[in-house]
Amino acid sequence: MARIDGARLLADLRALAEIGRWQTGVHRPTYTAADMDARRWLAARLEEAGLDTAIDGVGNVIGRSRRAGPRFLLGSHIETQPYAGWLDGALGVIYGLEVARSLPDIAIDVAAFADEEAHFSPQLGSRSFTETLTDHDLERFANRDSGQPLMAALRDAGLADRPRLRIRDMAPQAYIEAHIEQGDELESKGLRLGVVTGIVGIRQFRIGFDGVQNHAGTTRMAARKDAGVALVRFASAVERAFPSAAGPRSVWTIGRIALEPGSPAVIPGRAELDLQFRDVDAGVLDRMEETLERLVAEAGREGPCSVRMEYTGRTDPALMDPRLQDALERAAERHAPGQHQRMPSGAGHDAQTLARLVPAAMLFVPSIGGISHHHTENTSEEDIVLGCAVLADAVDELATAAGNGLPAGSLPQAGKDAAHAL
Amino acid sequence: MARIDGARLLADLRALAEIGRWQTGVHRPTYTAADMDARRWLAARLEEAGLDTAIDGVGNVIGRSRRAGPRFLLGSHIETQPYAGWLDGALGVIYGLEVARSLPDIAIDVAAFADEEAHFSPQLGSRSFTETLTDHDLERFANRDSGQPLMAALRDAGLADRPRLRIRDMAPQAYIEAHIEQGDELESKGLRLGVVTGIVGIRQFRIGFDGVQNHAGTTRMAARKDAGVALVRFASAVERAFPSAAGPRSVWTIGRIALEPGSPAVIPGRAELDLQFRDVDAGVLDRMEETLERLVAEAGREGPCSVRMEYTGRTDPALMDPRLQDALERAAERHAPGQHQRMPSGAGHDAQTLARLVPAAMLFVPSIGGISHHHTENTSEEDIVLGCAVLADAVDELATAAGNGLPAGSLPQAGKDAAHAL
Repeated sequence: MARIDGARLLADLRALAEIGRWQTGVHRPTYTAADMDARRWLAARLEEAGLDTAIDGVGNVIGRSRRAGPRFLLGSHIETQPYAGWLDGALGVIYGLEVARSLPDIAIDVAAFADEEAHFSPQLGSRSFTETLTDHDLERFANRDSGQPLMAALRDAGLADRPRLRIRDMAPQAYIEAHIEQGDELESKGLRLGVVTGIVGIRQFRIGFDGVQNHAGTTRMAARKDAGVALVRFASAVERAFPSAAGPRSVWTIGRIALEPGSPAVIPGRAELDLQFRDVDAGVLDRMEETLERLVAEAGREGPCSVRMEYTGRTDPALMDPRLQDALERAAERHAPGQHQRMPSGAGHDAQTLARLVPAAMLFVPSIGGISHHHTENTSEEDIVLGCAVLADAVDELATAAGNGLPAGSLPQAGKDAAHAL
Repeated sequence: MARIDGARLLADLRALAEIGRWQTGVHRPTYTAADMDARRWLAARLEEAGLDTAIDGVGNVIGRSRRAGPRFLLGSHIETQPYAGWLDGALGVIYGLEVARSLPDIAIDVAAFADEEAHFSPQLGSRSFTETLTDHDLERFANRDSGQPLMAALRDAGLADRPRLRIRDMAPQAYIEAHIEQGDELESKGLRLGVVTGIVGIRQFRIGFDGVQNHAGTTRMAARKDAGVALVRFASAVERAFPSAAGPRSVWTIGRIALEPGSPAVIPGRAELDLQFRDVDAGVLDRMEETLERLVAEAGREGPCSVRMEYTGRTDPALMDPRLQDALERAAERHAPGQHQRMPSGAGHDAQTLARLVPAAMLFVPSIGGISHHHTENTSEEDIVLGCAVLADAVDELATAAGNGLPAGSLPQAGKDAAHAL
């Protein structure tokens, strides 16, 4: 079995968590100074590990092994949600670094994909890497909070003139991403590892309401066109209607509301909310979207404010490769017998983008209390080290199988869903 | 009759509107650089008009006539709501300047009271001037948007070490404030002047919801403590319950909503809204507040989020002085026969604070389309000039009456409501 250095792994995770540290967590939104510091720190670690490393034109940090032979790509992302936790995607990236160091005879490449967290657009870096982004996309994306155009942010970060790296130039046999679970299912069942079967699709919308801004004292109730009232009515209607449209594991969230001008003495003339929903079943997602469209149409008919709805993000559900799942499961059973399960991922991950072009898989470790995207996010040191050992062992087994004269073609290809998505 | 210079009046209003100009309106929140520029500009104009002028410790701009005899205080405020209109309080202040210039033989003082618009606390300047603010109040107030403490803002504006001026050192016979109507009642009736009978009281609250911040994909719907959902439910309950608690002319507004952290992929752990309501009847205000308290208690009992409610502002209703109303009405009838009416004010004004210590009155001019607190706010030039002429004429008549050997005591004193409030 592969041998990883648990102390070295933990030390690197802690060193990365110091960059943009906030309380017990980390604040590293994409392309901020802290985020760019983290990318440069990671590139230096990958170089030290003997990988040829570059930060590409969208901020992807890619380290390439100098070894010949079947290639394996390990990674995740290192930027964070605002004021979020220290592990999240950083775990999978530092696992990649540690596995590459521990298995120097295998051609292991490591990637930290930019902006998985969608400060500009979800999974921006892995979509660039898989060539599913157009130049037009890059020109229209903007920061979800500040409105800064992506191209301006890339220029400010010194990235705009760099080439964008592509998966076709690396041709890995497989992509494997480790991540914290971000839910409490493993912990509540007393398990320590999750082998992911599929990743939910996400549909995200911005819904805007236009009324008339006016004085909050002199405008009679009957004469108002209050965009905030329209928003509250709409949000209530979503809460009432979605349970019957959704599937048993669907989730939906209104994460942001803004009233303009946002003053207690002024009737809001404009209001806006961000709504997203997730499910592994595209049919369920379609049903929820139809419900949303109906509610928007009804709100527009009722008045007095007008309503508009636009897509702000969309990822399709993706199934993980069955043979990679098997390898992860066997390694999990060797290291922690009976303490693992197969499970879907409620969160989106770069693996779903990669899965369109290459066999992909994911490994989960438990989140204490199910908490993530918050500074108290954590995983026990024992589980952090266990997960890395299982990942290294699975890669070792896969490389041995691939190296034993088996042609690359005998490794699993992207599954039905991935082929369909192409 | 007094003679004012309409062209000079309009030129001064336009010059003031250039400071902090935004589109066709003005952006001059209290103590910002633009607001302080405007205060210095005004002080220079008052000095030019022969008034001894000072900017005091909370930013009040006070110009004092060097004349002896019965004193009249005219004014309003010059800071604005965010991205608001060019007239609003500026109208009443520049009226004061123009009337003082036009009636040099009368002891006319002019005031621009700071922060009537409640960026820190409603009618902060007039409450300081009437000594109804404690030092403790000044230490606890903070900017409603940025959270900056008032004392820090006063230091940054260079005001913190200045004395605070007091009405007792000036002892005016009366305070008269002109203002745009900010509603469409005058325009819709074809009238040009409103003599105000009373000013609504305002109660303003911040209501906060505490849940648990978590990942929007991995946290099952049943396991969530979503502070945003709690806020939307509460706001809906307010919209359902308030109509039966309110009076026929009551108004209520949710002008601001904030979800934390405000990201589409994170379940809000905290949420907050600002709610205010207004009526001329304190009993109606009590009933609305009781309803609000009941809804807060119900939301807390229902869970899963906790709810807290705090006062963020309160002004009591105030009646205007009947004899000052009579003088304004006679002047209105001389200048625009049959084109005026008596009416309540749905907006709060410094006059309600002054009315606790001195006879007070207000004069309204029409707002085109009823619009205010928006950059399209406007009043016709003819109506602007007419309002100033009526104000000057009323002051002239009142001064003549006071100067004709009538003791100051024969001028009206603060009415029943004002006496009660003391």
